[in-house]
Amino acid sequence: MNSPARVTSLLSAIRSVGADPRRGGYSRFTYSNADAELREWFVAEAARRSLDVEVDRNGAIWAWRAGPGGSLEDAVVTGSHLDSVPGGGQFDGPLGVASALAAVDLLDARGASFGRPLAVVVFGEEEGARFGQACLGSRLMTGDLSAETALNCRDIDGVSLADALNRSGIDPTRVGRDDEALGRIGAFVELHVEQGRGLIDLGQPVAIASSIIGHGLWRLTVVGEGNHAGATLMDHRRDPLVAAGAIVALVRDAAREVPDARATVGRIQPVPGGTNVIASRVEVWLDVRHPDDAQARNLVATILDRARRAAASEGCDVTLAEESYGSSVHFDATLRDRLATVLPEAPILKSGAGHDAGVLAEVVPTAMLFTRNPTGISHSPHEQIEESDAEAGAAALAEVLADLLAGQAGAAAAADPS
Amino acid sequence: MNSPARVTSLLSAIRSVGADPRRGGYSRFTYSNADAELREWFVAEAARRSLDVEVDRNGAIWAWRAGPGGSLEDAVVTGSHLDSVPGGGQFDGPLGVASALAAVDLLDARGASFGRPLAVVVFGEEEGARFGQACLGSRLMTGDLSAETALNCRDIDGVSLADALNRSGIDPTRVGRDDEALGRIGAFVELHVEQGRGLIDLGQPVAIASSIIGHGLWRLTVVGEGNHAGATLMDHRRDPLVAAGAIVALVRDAAREVPDARATVGRIQPVPGGTNVIASRVEVWLDVRHPDDAQARNLVATILDRARRAAASEGCDVTLAEESYGSSVHFDATLRDRLATVLPEAPILKSGAGHDAGVLAEVVPTAMLFTRNPTGISHSPHEQIEESDAEAGAAALAEVLADLLAGQAGAAAAADPS
Repeated sequence: MNSPARVTSLLSAIRSVGADPRRGGYSRFTYSNADAELREWFVAEAARRSLDVEVDRNGAIWAWRAGPGGSLEDAVVTGSHLDSVPGGGQFDGPLGVASALAAVDLLDARGASFGRPLAVVVFGEEEGARFGQACLGSRLMTGDLSAETALNCRDIDGVSLADALNRSGIDPTRVGRDDEALGRIGAFVELHVEQGRGLIDLGQPVAIASSIIGHGLWRLTVVGEGNHAGATLMDHRRDPLVAAGAIVALVRDAAREVPDARATVGRIQPVPGGTNVIASRVEVWLDVRHPDDAQARNLVATILDRARRAAASEGCDVTLAEESYGSSVHFDATLRDRLATVLPEAPILKSGAGHDAGVLAEVVPTAMLFTRNPTGISHSPHEQIEESDAEAGAAALAEVLADLLAGQAGAAAAADPS
Repeated sequence: MNSPARVTSLLSAIRSVGADPRRGGYSRFTYSNADAELREWFVAEAARRSLDVEVDRNGAIWAWRAGPGGSLEDAVVTGSHLDSVPGGGQFDGPLGVASALAAVDLLDARGASFGRPLAVVVFGEEEGARFGQACLGSRLMTGDLSAETALNCRDIDGVSLADALNRSGIDPTRVGRDDEALGRIGAFVELHVEQGRGLIDLGQPVAIASSIIGHGLWRLTVVGEGNHAGATLMDHRRDPLVAAGAIVALVRDAAREVPDARATVGRIQPVPGGTNVIASRVEVWLDVRHPDDAQARNLVATILDRARRAAASEGCDVTLAEESYGSSVHFDATLRDRLATVLPEAPILKSGAGHDAGVLAEVVPTAMLFTRNPTGISHSPHEQIEESDAEAGAAALAEVLADLLAGQAGAAAAADPS
């Protein structure tokens, strides 16, 4: 391969994979046919760069350029994910993978040889769109999510992760914390499309991340009395969807009262869900994020308190279940400062979105780069990337990788305990 | 067959068919495997009573006891439907079919011969739960719904009615108004489980219907801006689910302001519907019923006006589409009075729910009987029937059929134009 691939050219090869005509955008669910196509594309691109491909125990794909003597120790690792939310954009995940491949090309074009191994990694389910667990693949690798819990997660059709892995040729009995895979990572750097407007406002193409704000998912179950929509007088009803409607509104109002908080209901499911049926219960999923754990939990408590009152006024009951919670993540300060030295123009931004890098940050020195998104919109078909920004992102990633590959990231991180 | 079957014994044979473990109750969708089992059960029960079975062009099953000389003209017809809403009860529909079979037994036990033919009919989709068209089978037969419209209706998996009919061995090219089938009906009497509390309050097991209140289904589409639930600040959102929540509440409030009105949202679908995604749009189905057409349409106009204002305050837009509308139906007065003479104890009640009988009433003399539901709850697993009430209903239906079979219902109806 003589001239480095452009990021947008790499992505154009998968532009039709997992397109969702009903929702718009892309629905690329882990271990679906679309996902298999995306994984095949990555394996082929890795092979074109003479990278050695392996699939680890948790389904992540690693593409290796070994270090001196074939070493895979103290590796510099970059990468992201290929799955999407339902009806998502084409850059959330794949931009990081394509930028990593383009960065390998840029490094190869320099002809430099390095003292450390390099790997590009693609993690399994990051969005939680199929099995309901955000960062499923990376959390299995670090042990943050137990194999038992994960394997029993089911998709909307009742297929368990264990079944899906089996069908994809991955042995579910080997899933779980993988110290061997973790032990080889000297530093991890994930590039991602920005999911807000920070870089638009600052007029820069690339940023360095400082932290990821804490993120939890809860489920509110509102129980009323199912009945016939025609034969039941208005005053004889205990309609949980009327209560749930009030709850969606009060979630937003409560979040507005807390600086830096975000609270969202994006999924709601009346049961049974017939047009001519007063629902008997409604499931309401609540996504809450705040940099401070205590404030996040206070906000959820406020929402539950108000939801109970709103439901009671409809003769309905509410219960709350926590589905997941992750505290705020602060990326390795030494590594972040090293990136800032390499990329002096890049601003330092907080991330409101979760990432595999946030999971790895608990275990290995980890950093993130963001590439500007000119719409500021993400998890939507309107997510966008300018070609020049994509190239700037890949170039920045190549600079960072070159710096880390030349030195000893693990040693550098250890030398400065700040 | 020597002793007449009990209604509850007949129904116990299908108690496990189409049970829905997720929603509770039953999900018996037209032309599903469950529906095929129910239809086989009906055909077998008809055969045990030496009734001649035919499936008509629109998929309805007719079980005939021919009149003198094998005549099928000026027939007395009874029956109902076997499909259900999602997560519905076991009596809405099947009670009318089982009561019809039990009534045939009661007539046979008397050993009387009649001057007119008798038929028990099972109509196709009545609930609209699969293809979205209430009374699909009966409206095709009367021509109220065009074949073209119906055949293009699709279920949630995108299967058209045309495909579903083909798979069930019914020729979709022959679907449509069936004057031959209609021309044979001298009178139609449908027995149905009551879907409200009228008979509970009156302390009676069986009622005669006077009318069915008008019923329409609309769809509101609320459009906002899809985005990331973590990275999008609360004040940067145009969240259509917040607007939709307000709309569900205002639908109920608007209906309460109009005497005799019922308005319900039982189904709501955010798109894309991910837990970590601000929806880009939300579909809200609106069921509105009122005895007076103008008041129903005024209520919908009020709801749309208020919905637009609620959406505008969230930066969202609303559009409204009518999916179906049926005016109030007043059952044939002569036939109703004849039933009242046969069943002097039975009160006369309005129906808030739609029925195939309401469709047939536009074309042939039609009447309805209701059997008491001790919970007053319908379209729910809590729908219930007492065994003694079921027997009282079947006995009342047998009395009505005997009276009609002995005379000339069509002639009687024609003789009194009131």
